[in-house]
Amino acid sequence: MKVRTEGGIRDLRAIWFSNGKVMMIDQRELPHRVVTVGFNNYLDVAEAIRNMTTRGAPSIGAAAAYGMCLAALSGIDLDLASKNIKAARPTANDLFFAVDHMHSLLKKGSDPVRAANDYADMIVRKCTKIGEHGSKLIRDGMNVMTHCNAGALATVDVGTALAPMRKAWADGKRFFVYVSETRPRLQGMQLTAWELGQEGIRHAIIPDGASAYYMEKGVDLIITGADRITANGDFANKIGTFDKAILAKHFGIPFYVAAPISTFDLDMKMGRAIEIEQRSEKEVTEVRGISIAPAGSPALNPAFDVTPAELVTGFITEKGIFGPKDVKKVMENE
Amino acid sequence: MKVRTEGGIRDLRAIWFSNGKVMMIDQRELPHRVVTVGFNNYLDVAEAIRNMTTRGAPSIGAAAAYGMCLAALSGIDLDLASKNIKAARPTANDLFFAVDHMHSLLKKGSDPVRAANDYADMIVRKCTKIGEHGSKLIRDGMNVMTHCNAGALATVDVGTALAPMRKAWADGKRFFVYVSETRPRLQGMQLTAWELGQEGIRHAIIPDGASAYYMEKGVDLIITGADRITANGDFANKIGTFDKAILAKHFGIPFYVAAPISTFDLDMKMGRAIEIEQRSEKEVTEVRGISIAPAGSPALNPAFDVTPAELVTGFITEKGIFGPKDVKKVMENE
Repeated sequence: MKVRTEGGIRDLRAIWFSNGKVMMIDQRELPHRVVTVGFNNYLDVAEAIRNMTTRGAPSIGAAAAYGMCLAALSGIDLDLASKNIKAARPTANDLFFAVDHMHSLLKKGSDPVRAANDYADMIVRKCTKIGEHGSKLIRDGMNVMTHCNAGALATVDVGTALAPMRKAWADGKRFFVYVSETRPRLQGMQLTAWELGQEGIRHAIIPDGASAYYMEKGVDLIITGADRITANGDFANKIGTFDKAILAKHFGIPFYVAAPISTFDLDMKMGRAIEIEQRSEKEVTEVRGISIAPAGSPALNPAFDVTPAELVTGFITEKGIFGPKDVKKVMENE
Repeated sequence: MKVRTEGGIRDLRAIWFSNGKVMMIDQRELPHRVVTVGFNNYLDVAEAIRNMTTRGAPSIGAAAAYGMCLAALSGIDLDLASKNIKAARPTANDLFFAVDHMHSLLKKGSDPVRAANDYADMIVRKCTKIGEHGSKLIRDGMNVMTHCNAGALATVDVGTALAPMRKAWADGKRFFVYVSETRPRLQGMQLTAWELGQEGIRHAIIPDGASAYYMEKGVDLIITGADRITANGDFANKIGTFDKAILAKHFGIPFYVAAPISTFDLDMKMGRAIEIEQRSEKEVTEVRGISIAPAGSPALNPAFDVTPAELVTGFITEKGIFGPKDVKKVMENE
């Protein structure tokens, strides 16, 4: 991704390996400062996953892979390293997948740095394909809307929902992006708007509740990411996605979900089975540690919602774009 | 309204007259502290309207009436006082109406304090009737949802959207209220949740984007206020109301709008004609003066949206409850 620094525009990944160190953009410092941090101890990488220096399931997976790489380079017992890295965060499946994948390769004698780089490159390659397929949906003069951050920060580089926008913009198409701020954690305002700004893509932040207002004025295309997609085409994503999908149906606006094939979970028949993480009410009632709500008023903070397949126009994947009814067929050919 | 203080529960209005002074709850201090302020100079009342010590169109009207009262008591020229009070804020029609109403009564020799008290009492009487009619919609065990603050703080006492909830709760009905936080200014979180908490009404704050999530789980009734209702039944209200109304239709949830008859503007044929105030982007991108958004990312901040009549189940007014198609008929009988 492009990052504008005092020294000019740099092309950075969210995570990379350089001079024996795992490097990351410290996402906790965004959007105000671009700070890169480097670690040569795998336990520091585990801590960086835990404290959200890096976030987003694919980026977490890449960080875990590089963590295993560091452990191997230092001669740490790989079973111990696996255990410690897996303990960093509880939910993202990519974390466990990446650790096991690396463990298996390292046991077979693969080069640690090469194996971890390959893992990160694989993610970026998939996202690039998603961008190529999805960019065909974007035409000059369109108004596009997105929610939360399914960008380069979350996926090592390029992004999922943002991949089609990057590609279309790079191809010279000129369009406008409504970035829904995404309360309570404001990933839309603080990460997506930042990424679009770095690339020079025209955009504006809107409150989540201004979605219907702008859809009525004219939104041509909505693209979000997904945390998990079930066999029938239902999908879980950041809270507020379901609202947008219903509004899109009301206004007849195409609603697309961008995600790699690895996001599909055919073991789950429908979205109803997905357990929704309930997060701390303080994320709603506090800003920077200061309470903004009445003492004694509880708040509810579901992190995700589940949008039913009937509201999805199509899934944008590295294998192409297909509708919810074709999920099983596409997966059977995997 | 009930206000819990260290000395016990007090029954306060948002604005009242006592010992030669216009008293107000300073709404800028909510929800953390209940501070009452008193003014004996009408120019201080105009400033309190301007700096939002009090807010909400009917409360602004009452403050203006009491301001005219103070001016009359001090022997100030009434034309001058009218001009100065009207200059306090540009939009609320109640401000101009209340000043002209008082000016006319004072010229006829009405008692200033009595005339201003009568004006405030009239607002409260209407809200009480709205509560009586609307409370019939609320049953034991219901989940109710509201947006923004159409409560006692905005209407001297009782409220519009909150009036049916106060009355139903006072009648012993037990229900639960989802309070949508209402970004960017958080009137739901900071004012509505505070009012419900003072009355002991069970509630929780939710992010605006969690509306579909909770509607799917089970919301039985939605009640919002309105800033203006046009002849065909379209209405303007706080940004995010339109989103809720579309979601309510999707889930088949009754959607009611509580407002006094004075909110209906038959000179406007449809909502499309209502001009929407665009407020400062800093309300979106800053919290307590601190920027939370990327430098250079613009934000859009429409203060209101317009919900079409087809999404309204009914209007709850002091004259009873009626559907959007009956607006003209009811008004012709006024």
